[in-house]
Amino acid sequence: MKCQPCQGSLTSLPLACRIPLVEPIPLVTLTTDFGTADGYVGTMKGVILSIVPGARLVDISHEIAPQNVRQAAYVLYTAYPFFPPHTVHLVVVDPGVGSTRRSISLRTPAGYFVGPDNGVFSYVMAREPVEVVVELSDPRYRLPQVSYTFHGRDVFAPAAAHLAAGVPIAALGPPVRDPVTFPPPCLEVASDVITGEVLHADRFGNVITSIGQLVWSGDELVLEPAFQETGGEEQVRFKAGEAAVVMAGQEITGVYRTYAEVEPGETLALVGSEGHLEIAVREGNAARRLGLHPGDAVVLRL
Amino acid sequence: MKCQPCQGSLTSLPLACRIPLVEPIPLVTLTTDFGTADGYVGTMKGVILSIVPGARLVDISHEIAPQNVRQAAYVLYTAYPFFPPHTVHLVVVDPGVGSTRRSISLRTPAGYFVGPDNGVFSYVMAREPVEVVVELSDPRYRLPQVSYTFHGRDVFAPAAAHLAAGVPIAALGPPVRDPVTFPPPCLEVASDVITGEVLHADRFGNVITSIGQLVWSGDELVLEPAFQETGGEEQVRFKAGEAAVVMAGQEITGVYRTYAEVEPGETLALVGSEGHLEIAVREGNAARRLGLHPGDAVVLRL
Amino acid sequence: MKCQPCQGSLTSLPLACRIPLVEPIPLVTLTTDFGTADGYVGTMKGVILSIVPGARLVDISHEIAPQNVRQAAYVLYTAYPFFPPHTVHLVVVDPGVGSTRRSISLRTPAGYFVGPDNGVFSYVMAREPVEVVVELSDPRYRLPQVSYTFHGRDVFAPAAAHLAAGVPIAALGPPVRDPVTFPPPCLEVASDVITGEVLHADRFGNVITSIGQLVWSGDELVLEPAFQETGGEEQVRFKAGEAAVVMAGQEITGVYRTYAEVEPGETLALVGSEGHLEIAVREGNAARRLGLHPGDAVVLRL
Repeated sequence: MKCQPCQGSLTSLPLACRIPLVEPIPLVTLTTDFGTADGYVGTMKGVILSIVPGARLVDISHEIAPQNVRQAAYVLYTAYPFFPPHTVHLVVVDPGVGSTRRSISLRTPAGYFVGPDNGVFSYVMAREPVEVVVELSDPRYRLPQVSYTFHGRDVFAPAAAHLAAGVPIAALGPPVRDPVTFPPPCLEVASDVITGEVLHADRFGNVITSIGQLVWSGDELVLEPAFQETGGEEQVRFKAGEAAVVMAGQEITGVYRTYAEVEPGETLALVGSEGHLEIAVREGNAARRLGLHPGDAVVLRL
Repeated sequence: MKCQPCQGSLTSLPLACRIPLVEPIPLVTLTTDFGTADGYVGTMKGVILSIVPGARLVDISHEIAPQNVRQAAYVLYTAYPFFPPHTVHLVVVDPGVGSTRRSISLRTPAGYFVGPDNGVFSYVMAREPVEVVVELSDPRYRLPQVSYTFHGRDVFAPAAAHLAAGVPIAALGPPVRDPVTFPPPCLEVASDVITGEVLHADRFGNVITSIGQLVWSGDELVLEPAFQETGGEEQVRFKAGEAAVVMAGQEITGVYRTYAEVEPGETLALVGSEGHLEIAVREGNAARRLGLHPGDAVVLRL
Repeated sequence: MKCQPCQGSLTSLPLACRIPLVEPIPLVTLTTDFGTADGYVGTMKGVILSIVPGARLVDISHEIAPQNVRQAAYVLYTAYPFFPPHTVHLVVVDPGVGSTRRSISLRTPAGYFVGPDNGVFSYVMAREPVEVVVELSDPRYRLPQVSYTFHGRDVFAPAAAHLAAGVPIAALGPPVRDPVTFPPPCLEVASDVITGEVLHADRFGNVITSIGQLVWSGDELVLEPAFQETGGEEQVRFKAGEAAVVMAGQEITGVYRTYAEVEPGETLALVGSEGHLEIAVREGNAARRLGLHPGDAVVLRL
């Protein structure tokens, strides 16, 4: 048995796989607002493993705030690039379950995506070239009985499992030309001011903004707008140490590389691990201290 | 290498497994009241993977309220039917650990079950033909040292792992003739009134009642009582739109198919994804609004 | 295909593995303070599975209190002995991310450990003979771009994945002679008094102390101090029923085997599943009732 090269989106890494692979191991991620108390996620996993017993299942988050489609879109946006390109990303944050909203699947070079057609894939679609979108209408790839209230179990999990098992996406249903997307987060670039908004506050109270991607170039930062298909002319370059961040009626100076550059308890702006401008308190909680919430305006003065 | 047909309880699905299977992949689910902060669940998984390294492990819930055996029984009841029949369902909600309560395992056509003999399998036993129940007394299938307080690690995880690995259930210990069961949830069927109780309130505040299974037949609903071995003569058929639900001093009219049939913020009764009568608020929290808790009476007037 | 003997640290167990193994299945555990809402853990798993697609991933805990290195050290201490010795234990509780703190990996006979050099492996090092410690400095075993704030994703996950895939630990970087450790928890043994401290309060409110390991010998208990490389002369033997535990201004008599020996609602001292003295309330919450917190003194009078 010879060891085939491992698949992976991180192909510049030295790969040292010891498991002989015949084909990629099916891999499905799950992102929901179901929480973990009720058994709903476990039930979906039972459905997937009944169809594709060898699948690997990875939880991205089940603590999306109930029915908060934008939060799910953001969390998915941060995680999917780190998975192999044959991964199926299953997202069930679905306030419209039982209505006429469509169930869809997307194929991109970075992976497959399965979920409700409610905009939850907006950030994926703004970054990846979408090859095809289909509606999950073929009853052969659903459970025999589809409930009106749990499409995660009856529609989305079976579709994700079949994609992971190698069923071609076109088999799942007809193409969709007009998937729902919501407008990208606010990001206005002027000559000396960049205006964005709060996207997310994480467990540590770090506040991630829509101002990204920011890339270091010596002591300077270069902005290459995320969530936009073309951003060439909006590229901006500025001195990190001289920029000022204004939000919630406060102003702080300088954009840092890491928490450790300030004293414990101090508020700072930095470039976070996703390449977005982030507001943090070293060993503290910036969202709570500054009272920042998703949607609040953040201004970067250059 | 040829691809064997996948195992699965959902055999009517088109199966497209690409992983060559020699035998079913061992599959163990876990349901506990341990939470996920303390490492207890991870420790149990270490024990299982030390015995059967190829096992798949799926969390059903670790957020069962501490020592709430009935809640665990309900969550298990909703999840196990969606797993393949060779699955071992491990449940550790065990207020009696260290007392003389027995440790048991059951085999049914729908799967194996391992846990304390405290009634946690009551709903499984009311729905599935139990083939055998044994007491987990053979020390060869326990850890060498059994603590007095963590049988999940020392007794139940090793038993589940050995069952998953193919050890016959009879090897684990002698038969048990009188496993503990608690009475099924309240469900009284009269000519024009069905009386039940609240079983569970989920993360979304949806309130699931003991009034089920309800099956749609056009505009009518047919009740085939769950949790009862024979329910033939109690089958009831009624018009969904004309039924009224009375609970917590309130009355609402009609039983719907899905949330989307009412306006956001409105309270409704519907048939939930388990086939039970459910009270919900569209995009809201019914348990909180109505003050409903497990055990509260719910009346369906036909 | 023949079934090789399963690997396992629990080799006295009857092993009945049905999965033909060529080599041990790569196994990585994860312990972080990331919570499960933000997708950070899922992202790390994507990195690991991109490098070693066949790896098994087991969560120990992601609910370590933010930046509480001692709590992480304790939770890891209770879990790692139950995993096979080829397991890689990845720990990311990292208040110093972005500073000059080193990133390290340890090899011991009980497993590999990967994380920041901040003392989080202190309890492991006090119990296991450490074979080698290296600094994770070789860029070939990191992601191509290392952020300043998410070394879990960019440094630790790739290192753990490569170790799990069989890369020799020495390849990851140069030896470290002086890894950071913090002092072991308080444990003072005098002729008739043992003084310790609270280590941890778990989800049930059980309070685990530093007084261990305690081993039953008939009606007597023998103390063999944990967290110390040599404890021979400090071994103490005493009658369990006559000992008294003093903490938080209260005194209770006797050390029990299990909760079931007292009435529901009663406070008791017992030997917990880790072999440490534990304070509990049967079917209640001792930490809350007694107001005990990590670091509080606990005295055992013999």
